Amino acid sequence: MRYIDFVDLKYRPSVDDVICEFQIEEAAGISLKEAAGGIAAESSIGTWTQVTTEKSYVKELGAKVFEIDGKRVKIAYPIRLFELGNLPNLLSSVAGNVYGLKELKHLRLEDIQIPSSLAKSFRGPRFGIEGVRKLVKVYGRPLLGAIIKPKLGLKAADHANVAYESWVGGCDIVKDDENLSSQDFNRFETRVSETLEKRDKAQEEVGEKKVYLPNVSAETEDMLRRAEYVKDLGGESVMIDVITCGASALQSLRNRDLGLVIHAHRAGHGALTRVENHGIAMKVIARLVRMVGVDQLHIGTAVGKMSESQDEVLENIKVLKEPFHGLKPVMPVASGGLHPILVPDLIKIFDKDFIIQAGGGIHGHPDGTIAGATAMRQAIDATLHGISLIDYANDHVELKKAMSIWMTR
Amino acid sequence: MRYIDFVDLKYRPSVDDVICEFQIEEAAGISLKEAAGGIAAESSIGTWTQVTTEKSYVKELGAKVFEIDGKRVKIAYPIRLFELGNLPNLLSSVAGNVYGLKELKHLRLEDIQIPSSLAKSFRGPRFGIEGVRKLVKVYGRPLLGAIIKPKLGLKAADHANVAYESWVGGCDIVKDDENLSSQDFNRFETRVSETLEKRDKAQEEVGEKKVYLPNVSAETEDMLRRAEYVKDLGGESVMIDVITCGASALQSLRNRDLGLVIHAHRAGHGALTRVENHGIAMKVIARLVRMVGVDQLHIGTAVGKMSESQDEVLENIKVLKEPFHGLKPVMPVASGGLHPILVPDLIKIFDKDFIIQAGGGIHGHPDGTIAGATAMRQAIDATLHGISLIDYANDHVELKKAMSIWMTR
Repeated sequence: MRYIDFVDLKYRPSVDDVICEFQIEEAAGISLKEAAGGIAAESSIGTWTQVTTEKSYVKELGAKVFEIDGKRVKIAYPIRLFELGNLPNLLSSVAGNVYGLKELKHLRLEDIQIPSSLAKSFRGPRFGIEGVRKLVKVYGRPLLGAIIKPKLGLKAADHANVAYESWVGGCDIVKDDENLSSQDFNRFETRVSETLEKRDKAQEEVGEKKVYLPNVSAETEDMLRRAEYVKDLGGESVMIDVITCGASALQSLRNRDLGLVIHAHRAGHGALTRVENHGIAMKVIARLVRMVGVDQLHIGTAVGKMSESQDEVLENIKVLKEPFHGLKPVMPVASGGLHPILVPDLIKIFDKDFIIQAGGGIHGHPDGTIAGATAMRQAIDATLHGISLIDYANDHVELKKAMSIWMTR
Repeated sequence: MRYIDFVDLKYRPSVDDVICEFQIEEAAGISLKEAAGGIAAESSIGTWTQVTTEKSYVKELGAKVFEIDGKRVKIAYPIRLFELGNLPNLLSSVAGNVYGLKELKHLRLEDIQIPSSLAKSFRGPRFGIEGVRKLVKVYGRPLLGAIIKPKLGLKAADHANVAYESWVGGCDIVKDDENLSSQDFNRFETRVSETLEKRDKAQEEVGEKKVYLPNVSAETEDMLRRAEYVKDLGGESVMIDVITCGASALQSLRNRDLGLVIHAHRAGHGALTRVENHGIAMKVIARLVRMVGVDQLHIGTAVGKMSESQDEVLENIKVLKEPFHGLKPVMPVASGGLHPILVPDLIKIFDKDFIIQAGGGIHGHPDGTIAGATAMRQAIDATLHGISLIDYANDHVELKKAMSIWMTR
């Protein structure tokens, strides 16, 4: 079969097909149809030349280009092309060699539709939005999280103290930075043990449930050992860098099913998602990690230090929350360059079911971390009560000070 | 510290620094220095604003922009920023959040220099080029590998037969496709068992060592179980899709140290590597997976169906073979759209220490797989003897037929 034979614009996908939507830029001298057919071929049963080894029973496994709309192309893949419950396999197929084909100049996987049988072969979120809310016993407002700063360098004891102050100031959650794992200045076990002690202290003093998210990102067996250590010490959540650890390890963490909330950081996604006409759209990553079963996922801020547009962020939120073969919705995380002044816009974009995470926007407060966390909570409270931050700041000094230093940003 | 404070053009890197070379495109209204400083900050101890929680002892961990040459920027990272032996951690740091910074429009990690202490905290290749040659007992010529085609769809028994014919025809190696794992039409265990039986048969008949590379790509624990199964059945090698499985699982496979040759397929790399001004250069991936310890790595063809230029391929080869803190050299794999006519150019580019892999270029031979493999071996023999393929084809009918159908490509 030639590449062009994988184009069938009359084909109507079956409910069991995986459907991918690509944006294509074909190479010079190549027709869009041939380039699109190349993708379908390379991800199913074809290659660049006819082969003598093809059996008649193989043909029904061919993927089909069934829609071409400008540079947008839809391809249907028979479910039998994939191993159920194997995310690396799915990726190697629909997001693998195709990026290297010389018939293409650029290729972006814009969206993916997963049939029920494939979705159900993964675990999906164990907690999801409801489970996370039940754990922290907070309803009706966004959760507030602090990221310990400086990102790297704090000794475990100082790290634990910053966490303590974040909780006492009003944060529900404290998380490690995405590149803090177990460096010599701050060993994983010491940090987790000391920070969970401070969590208990903060919980007792404040009378609210507090959550710590230690970063377990590492080689898979180290990662699983670390997650079990967290569990043993009474932790309820862990964080994993899903892109840099990879699909196999993410599945391993979910499949071990330790009863821990899984918080997914997406460090490195921008290498894949940021160029408009190449790579993989963030919403595809969001859908796939929801399928595997994370409970919380970073999806951009629309405001703050990251680059995504509001439309992209809204699409990501939709993918995390919309019905998906009975899998629980995932809690979106807004993180990156956030501070109190951005809170009203964030709540407008994200609504209430999300986590507002701040690092610099809390620990950068002139009066320190406690005041910084308090200012963030005040900004949330003001917004939920329909009061402008400027008015609310009149009798909330922490918010007032925060606004004075970040007003110009 | 502001982003700009992470620029120190007078700094001279220490032997223990990790050094990254980036190509930057700064966002509108941002100076290149500020954008570069943002990368150094975000990968070490800084963030977008000053924080009150920084301790004096933290400062020495700051990364430093020490060279700016046009859009090329070099950054030095103190080794203590990283956890030894943790590749996800290294990636989350130097190739993580930085891709999302709004101070940047595009960012490409062009090269990375790893200090000895970090390199030695990973295992490196167990076999490397010498070990692979010792296993197959072939010296002085490139190894020849076949990829079973069609990529997907063959039942295990037919798959094993195609493998058998490839070996009998002259291939040293037979590998699975990158997206064949354990689909219902061809279960992993059945395939491995039947194909290894055929390997034994071929070995006996031909009197040469033959190698099978089953694709173990899956969730980490499934992957390790599959690798152990291969080992138990007398296999000596496995293949892993390093990008789609991810860094954590790759380390797990190497660290389990089963004594199996690790063949690294790079399906999906193009999403990261292909855009000139964004993502990660293939040679960075090559260096990192060599450090973890693969024995063979796909690095492009310069000719064939993949898109990389000859210069890029030569750089990748260099990274796999050059001295690297005592780690063994990795055998380069040329794979994708290859057929006999391309062999002389391949050997010119790759020299002798590499694997020529062909799928369509073997099974697409008009007389079938045995003739196709024979034609490839003839092309290798002709080239090594300094005879032109056209002359050699005069009394080598398999080569002659192969040339007649692929001459126009």
